[in-house]
Amino acid sequence: MSQHITLSIDAMGGDNAPAMVVEGMDMALRDLPGTKFIVYGRSEQLVPLLEKFPKLSANVDLRHTDDVVSNDEKPGIALRSGRQSSMRKAIDAVGQHEADGVVSAGNTGALMAMAKFVLKTLPGIDRPAIASLLPTMRGESVMLDLGANIQCDAENLVQFAVMGEVFARNVLHIEKPSIGILNVGTEVLKGNDSVKQAAAILSETKLPIDFYGFVEGDDIGKGTVDVVVTDGFTGNVALKTVEGTAKLFAGALKQELMKSLPGKIGALVAKPAIDSFRERFDPRRYNGAMFLGLGGICVKSHGGTDALGFCYAIKVAHELVTDQLNEGIKEDYARFSSEHHSIPLIAAED
Amino acid sequence: MSQHITLSIDAMGGDNAPAMVVEGMDMALRDLPGTKFIVYGRSEQLVPLLEKFPKLSANVDLRHTDDVVSNDEKPGIALRSGRQSSMRKAIDAVGQHEADGVVSAGNTGALMAMAKFVLKTLPGIDRPAIASLLPTMRGESVMLDLGANIQCDAENLVQFAVMGEVFARNVLHIEKPSIGILNVGTEVLKGNDSVKQAAAILSETKLPIDFYGFVEGDDIGKGTVDVVVTDGFTGNVALKTVEGTAKLFAGALKQELMKSLPGKIGALVAKPAIDSFRERFDPRRYNGAMFLGLGGICVKSHGGTDALGFCYAIKVAHELVTDQLNEGIKEDYARFSSEHHSIPLIAAED
Repeated sequence: MSQHITLSIDAMGGDNAPAMVVEGMDMALRDLPGTKFIVYGRSEQLVPLLEKFPKLSANVDLRHTDDVVSNDEKPGIALRSGRQSSMRKAIDAVGQHEADGVVSAGNTGALMAMAKFVLKTLPGIDRPAIASLLPTMRGESVMLDLGANIQCDAENLVQFAVMGEVFARNVLHIEKPSIGILNVGTEVLKGNDSVKQAAAILSETKLPIDFYGFVEGDDIGKGTVDVVVTDGFTGNVALKTVEGTAKLFAGALKQELMKSLPGKIGALVAKPAIDSFRERFDPRRYNGAMFLGLGGICVKSHGGTDALGFCYAIKVAHELVTDQLNEGIKEDYARFSSEHHSIPLIAAED
Repeated sequence: MSQHITLSIDAMGGDNAPAMVVEGMDMALRDLPGTKFIVYGRSEQLVPLLEKFPKLSANVDLRHTDDVVSNDEKPGIALRSGRQSSMRKAIDAVGQHEADGVVSAGNTGALMAMAKFVLKTLPGIDRPAIASLLPTMRGESVMLDLGANIQCDAENLVQFAVMGEVFARNVLHIEKPSIGILNVGTEVLKGNDSVKQAAAILSETKLPIDFYGFVEGDDIGKGTVDVVVTDGFTGNVALKTVEGTAKLFAGALKQELMKSLPGKIGALVAKPAIDSFRERFDPRRYNGAMFLGLGGICVKSHGGTDALGFCYAIKVAHELVTDQLNEGIKEDYARFSSEHHSIPLIAAED
């Protein structure tokens, strides 16, 4: 399957770009043989880097661009003035069906704005959402939105629920994924208007959706539901809070173990177990946020990641292409939205 | 100092009440000798429990109440119909200056509504906030609001910032605490209107406040700032996300260690270090959310906690009384708000 997949890569996005991008592609290629990369960026930087990886180079179509979208560029400005940038060109390659998906570690807002402009949203989707996998006690859950939509109404949340459901079914291969809306309590009366109305819609819907109801912040780690739906503000804070807590824990565990000789010896003896623990929660393993609801596969890597993290982001894009996520969303959403529009938005219309 | 402190206790709030409440008081008394407790609840349950702790009993003034505020009671209903409840009577004891502070593990919304009604807010405070300490890489930070105010405007956030600053100075004894507003990015253009306006006000203020600017979810664990300011929706989700991630980590670490013989042996050798790690992040140590901005000390224990957790909540109340938090808030806030009202709420007035 992987022989036929081509990914376009923005080589200039990210704190450690383009070196980590090139190295990340090389790592990914080892696990995904046959993948082709169309790589956009400054050739004077990329050519010497690629020379170090002959096997990768054979699978790279390097296309020079001078322009780079900076991290502090506003999305609207980037959209207007960044037409020749590595980011835009990489997205264009998907729009022109040269590539099956795009990966960038650059400016999130600019990437979303450009991707929305070039790839358009899928039928029935007003606003695309950013989704990511998170580790839980039960395995993995998907959470969305993670920052594309700072303020969301009930209708947006319902659309996220549907997109998340399709994602969990098609990519996580969960037969009947459960959906929860993130809230400050599980009682129906809790929360703001958007979550209350969205829950009312999802509870009353005849859609074949397994709507669990409200979940709280600690349900993310518990894995209470397969899909956690939230607005982009709360979702972004929650995701980064998980990351921050993970780092705090990993750091503190090391600190406590290194404080005493028994700690050091125990850590040495238990090293394989501790390594396995650390690896399980390595944030790089969860790198690769997916833009859902677009007419093309677009994956955003964490800007501060290293080669291994970028490699995982490439793998995410590869998997979304393999699993034909967008075909699934399109089909399911057409069915869902015809159902859904027969359901009155009771509270929202008040 | 502790000889003179009297706390009123709602013995009926919490999943494991009243047993864990009585045991928690006994634990707290060992570390805070001389503390007196006025205990409200069903005497038929409490008398046999107290008999097991003769030393505690000597410091308890037991006052029978039949009524209990249930967990699913709406705050408004509890306020009107719960006048004879253990929760309300315990708050009344503070209002009538019989007790220096109240601790309850019951219904948060009802506790806040009753406390606000009985104790009133401090001058200049529109809405009290719920605050809690959180473990960080640098030690501890305070975060507020954690759920009292689901929707907040810029003015609310500014008031939280001031209350948090006073708290960090008076209770955490940090000379010049730094304040950050939780957001989805650190650039000034990011976020919703409330956080942008609040940041603009705090940046322009001549108040002697060390305003850091925006922080993100991962800054909570890093301890980037001493005071993390946010609305009650986001704060509640962030707090519970920290708790959930902590549980996920502790569980997964144990799981990985117990999987293999080297893991088990290593864990045994390193037991003191691992215990110390677990203890450092034991959620019970961070139990005891503080209601800031009220005319009396009120501490909310987690409903699902055990005796040790309740003991920590009592210690929090004791410390707030000892440090005369409310005196500090009153003095500082009077100074702050006279300053603050001279600063135009530029964006908010638009």
